[in-house]
Amino acid sequence: MVYSGIAGSEGIAAGKAYVFINNQTEIDMEAVASDAIQTELEKLNEGIELSRTQLIRLKEKVLQEFDESKAQIFEAHRMMLEDPEFAGAIREAITSGSVNAAYAVKKVADSYIAIFEQIEDDYMRERAADIKDVSSRLTRNILGISSWDLLAINSPVIIVAHDLTPSDTAMMNKEYVLGFTTDVGGSTSHTAIMARSLGIPAVLGLGDISSRIKDGDYLIIDGFEGKIIVNPDQEQQAEYEMKISQHRERRKKLQEVASLPAITADGRRIEISCNIGTPEDIHGAAANGGDGIGLFRTEFLYMNSNSLPSEEEQYEQYRKAAVLLQGKPLIIRTLDIGGDKKLPYLRIPEEMNPFLGWRAIRICLERKDIFKTQLRAILRASTEGNILIMFPMISGVGEVREAKKVLEETKEELRRENIKFDENIRVGIMVEIPSAAMTADIIAKEVDFFSIGTNDLCQYALAVDRMNPKVSSLYQPLHPGILRLIKNVIDASHRYGKFTGMCGEMAGTEEACVILLGLGLDEFSMSAAAIPAIKNLVRSVTIKQAEEIADHALTMDTPEEVLEYSRNILNQINKGLLCS
Amino acid sequence: MVYSGIAGSEGIAAGKAYVFINNQTEIDMEAVASDAIQTELEKLNEGIELSRTQLIRLKEKVLQEFDESKAQIFEAHRMMLEDPEFAGAIREAITSGSVNAAYAVKKVADSYIAIFEQIEDDYMRERAADIKDVSSRLTRNILGISSWDLLAINSPVIIVAHDLTPSDTAMMNKEYVLGFTTDVGGSTSHTAIMARSLGIPAVLGLGDISSRIKDGDYLIIDGFEGKIIVNPDQEQQAEYEMKISQHRERRKKLQEVASLPAITADGRRIEISCNIGTPEDIHGAAANGGDGIGLFRTEFLYMNSNSLPSEEEQYEQYRKAAVLLQGKPLIIRTLDIGGDKKLPYLRIPEEMNPFLGWRAIRICLERKDIFKTQLRAILRASTEGNILIMFPMISGVGEVREAKKVLEETKEELRRENIKFDENIRVGIMVEIPSAAMTADIIAKEVDFFSIGTNDLCQYALAVDRMNPKVSSLYQPLHPGILRLIKNVIDASHRYGKFTGMCGEMAGTEEACVILLGLGLDEFSMSAAAIPAIKNLVRSVTIKQAEEIADHALTMDTPEEVLEYSRNILNQINKGLLCS
Repeated sequence: MVYSGIAGSEGIAAGKAYVFINNQTEIDMEAVASDAIQTELEKLNEGIELSRTQLIRLKEKVLQEFDESKAQIFEAHRMMLEDPEFAGAIREAITSGSVNAAYAVKKVADSYIAIFEQIEDDYMRERAADIKDVSSRLTRNILGISSWDLLAINSPVIIVAHDLTPSDTAMMNKEYVLGFTTDVGGSTSHTAIMARSLGIPAVLGLGDISSRIKDGDYLIIDGFEGKIIVNPDQEQQAEYEMKISQHRERRKKLQEVASLPAITADGRRIEISCNIGTPEDIHGAAANGGDGIGLFRTEFLYMNSNSLPSEEEQYEQYRKAAVLLQGKPLIIRTLDIGGDKKLPYLRIPEEMNPFLGWRAIRICLERKDIFKTQLRAILRASTEGNILIMFPMISGVGEVREAKKVLEETKEELRRENIKFDENIRVGIMVEIPSAAMTADIIAKEVDFFSIGTNDLCQYALAVDRMNPKVSSLYQPLHPGILRLIKNVIDASHRYGKFTGMCGEMAGTEEACVILLGLGLDEFSMSAAAIPAIKNLVRSVTIKQAEEIADHALTMDTPEEVLEYSRNILNQINKGLLCS
Repeated sequence: MVYSGIAGSEGIAAGKAYVFINNQTEIDMEAVASDAIQTELEKLNEGIELSRTQLIRLKEKVLQEFDESKAQIFEAHRMMLEDPEFAGAIREAITSGSVNAAYAVKKVADSYIAIFEQIEDDYMRERAADIKDVSSRLTRNILGISSWDLLAINSPVIIVAHDLTPSDTAMMNKEYVLGFTTDVGGSTSHTAIMARSLGIPAVLGLGDISSRIKDGDYLIIDGFEGKIIVNPDQEQQAEYEMKISQHRERRKKLQEVASLPAITADGRRIEISCNIGTPEDIHGAAANGGDGIGLFRTEFLYMNSNSLPSEEEQYEQYRKAAVLLQGKPLIIRTLDIGGDKKLPYLRIPEEMNPFLGWRAIRICLERKDIFKTQLRAILRASTEGNILIMFPMISGVGEVREAKKVLEETKEELRRENIKFDENIRVGIMVEIPSAAMTADIIAKEVDFFSIGTNDLCQYALAVDRMNPKVSSLYQPLHPGILRLIKNVIDASHRYGKFTGMCGEMAGTEEACVILLGLGLDEFSMSAAAIPAIKNLVRSVTIKQAEEIADHALTMDTPEEVLEYSRNILNQINKGLLCS
């Protein structure tokens, strides 16, 4: 059987299916005869014991991979499980209601959750989420559903699921995961992003694939064409073995290109940088031939913690990154929290449209204490390397001036304290709000550089939440309106002698690369895995060719036309038909 | 005492305070001695009886003002109240728990609500909302809290509240409401919008005004300066009496202007139109001097109903509006549901960011059955007047072509059925998504007109949900980025001989009027109440003056500068200093 879906991440792989059953399973009530009550009570005890063991293992794994604070979650889960009141209430429900253990767990958990959720308090709401997690683990263990524990994977598999959440993927033994295929999701879903960052194929939006594929089925996953082949016949098997070997060839070739400089065929040097989340990611960036860091997301410092990170903690991380880079540029983005990223200890009110809400610089300009602590840490680290500061979610020049004022105050404080920093530290902004792109000429006078955040820019400019499957097909970075906004930003920056980079996913997209080059983009920043292919493209064309291609793309009416044209160009380049 | 807040709606009024206590009141549990249980049971019975009477009255009022389907809500509430199981459970809770009646109502209601809310079903969720409403009414009646029934107002008052919801304002006897003042909300909140459409002053965002003012306090509300004066002294009283009389003078003058044609001082005719929700609103538009209807929102047909309105029902309304207008233009916007507007019978999935989700044309292009029914009704009505069709939420030319294809199919169907329609009916789009504004030149070739929807355009272009108080201050229609987008749209339309109107709130804003005139806007469409002041402005300047003012505004860096400049210009015009 061949199933067609959305190609979420490139690559081809073959292997056994691991059908992951997530938290949505329905648990029915079963009336239990009075002589079977004892059996249900025993099932409960066994379930609690198994869950306890799992949670201890989980905590250990997370301690190794992350840090103490994340591991605390599983410690809290274990304590909840061992709470005699909780277990007592479940026993009581089994005995008095003569019902099965799994159902009793669900009922008791639901009543706890209902109470916690009523309380208008982030802390209590999180406790409700904890109880959901714990009771879901417990019921599944009672019911003997084993294929939900992604930690248990210990041989290479292709994950088949209805959907995968960030916490699902966090729990995986990633070395054994060959690919993802899911019922829902599109090319911009979490699953697709995760697959691309792992460099494995993903085919998504297949409707009900998770109920069609059985655990252990042999699958071929084709992330180029968006196909899943279940238990292929000999012919299919042979065809894909060839494709897999071609794919390996290409990867090998690209890996060779990775170490070469990013210079166009006519000799213009282009900056190919990497987006990272932690200083450790710099190793992967370097291995793939990144020139520097175009986007250092600082959220990890805030999210892996139970309270605001201190200046010292932040300084250590920024310094570490700067030192690792040995003078190559490190663009540090100031806190970009809010939207879909929440901090438990920072009260962000419930918002009807979080993407259009209180986030990033909007929070920092109100919470100057948080902002200044981060700026101090960045400034102090700036003596150790080539650090640049970048402000996110700027909508107009007013916010730039305000943010720069806080930066100046912070510098002044450091000067008074005789603490050294790079007096010439460069300051830029993310251009991710249409009004900023429209007024780039006004803002260019105030900053040293722009970095276009195409993920958000496209969402706002096209009025599309790309995570929403009902409309994600309208999320088109090659929309003529987007290309014009990008051109406007680049032109404005060059008029004032400033440079423009891009750190949205578009920068790592082969279909966009030559056009962006032709529009004059100075720096492309992307996930490490995307670097070799983009470098290869940059090295394949001249600036003049790229400009002609961009000019032609700008005459087109629809994203579909641009995409088709661009794919055509890529084909010509790959076949060596576009000679410089 | 003088309190300063946000000026939400212009105007000055004086009168008695009506402190509205809304649903947020906390109800505490009180242990009741066993001999007092009977008293609590009696309180419950009296509360039920009073609630029943109120609900019958409410239903009658709503039947008069709205229609059968809305009145059904209160009928459903009454039936819930009379449900013996519900009342029985409350009695049981009082008796077995020895608690007060109000608390027992709350407990029983909460348990029902918890059950309903768990079920993933829009219908059941609405039932939960119904129970909340009914039980809140009942507990309040039991506790003898009377000042929450906005229906009971029968003399002129200024409403003081923590916040006002759409259902609160729907229930008001509006002829007695002199003004609104609330603890929360800004100039774009529901309360402000409602006040402006009623033409009464509103002062909002006062923090805790609802707990500082007592029922019956004498208030002066100044919606120009955003001030509330509680129990003014003689001097304040005298000062405001003069202001009120000046305000009346200006209103009278404007009312005279209303009937004059909208012609600039140098003779260019400008279209001043009205935004309406039902055909009946046309009377108010005409009374205020509207030239036609720039935006006929068709949602009322869908929202005041339990199922999709039939072609015939729609035809009747469109025909009625067209006939009432006697040949003046009627721009009918096709269904603009989704975002913050839901239909109970049309399943719109829960969305994380509804403003960036499945709405308007995005729904219509998927649900072509709904779309075609509406287009048939509009086309059939087009023989009865001067109807134009407008598609909302267009992000690019692709959607325009798709929508026009459906329109062509519909026309072809009517031709085959020998049903007449205006073969030359004009078709336009709302420009409310930045990508559409950026590609207006591409789209202009496909349409007869644009109408700029500034409310959404600003939200997307500035990445601000204007209903979100944490960020609403960033919602600035005079942002240079917005002005440039508007200019781009107008210029593109004129290049192709098409016209551009505007139906967002900006079109009815005096601060924006002269700039928009100078940018070349052909049509201003607004709420009826705003027409006289805008007409007055249009008549006060020449096109050349307006162009110079717009050109100057376009040189500015920030919305604050533009606003200050614009207010300056308005002052000059009002003082007769800007002579043509």
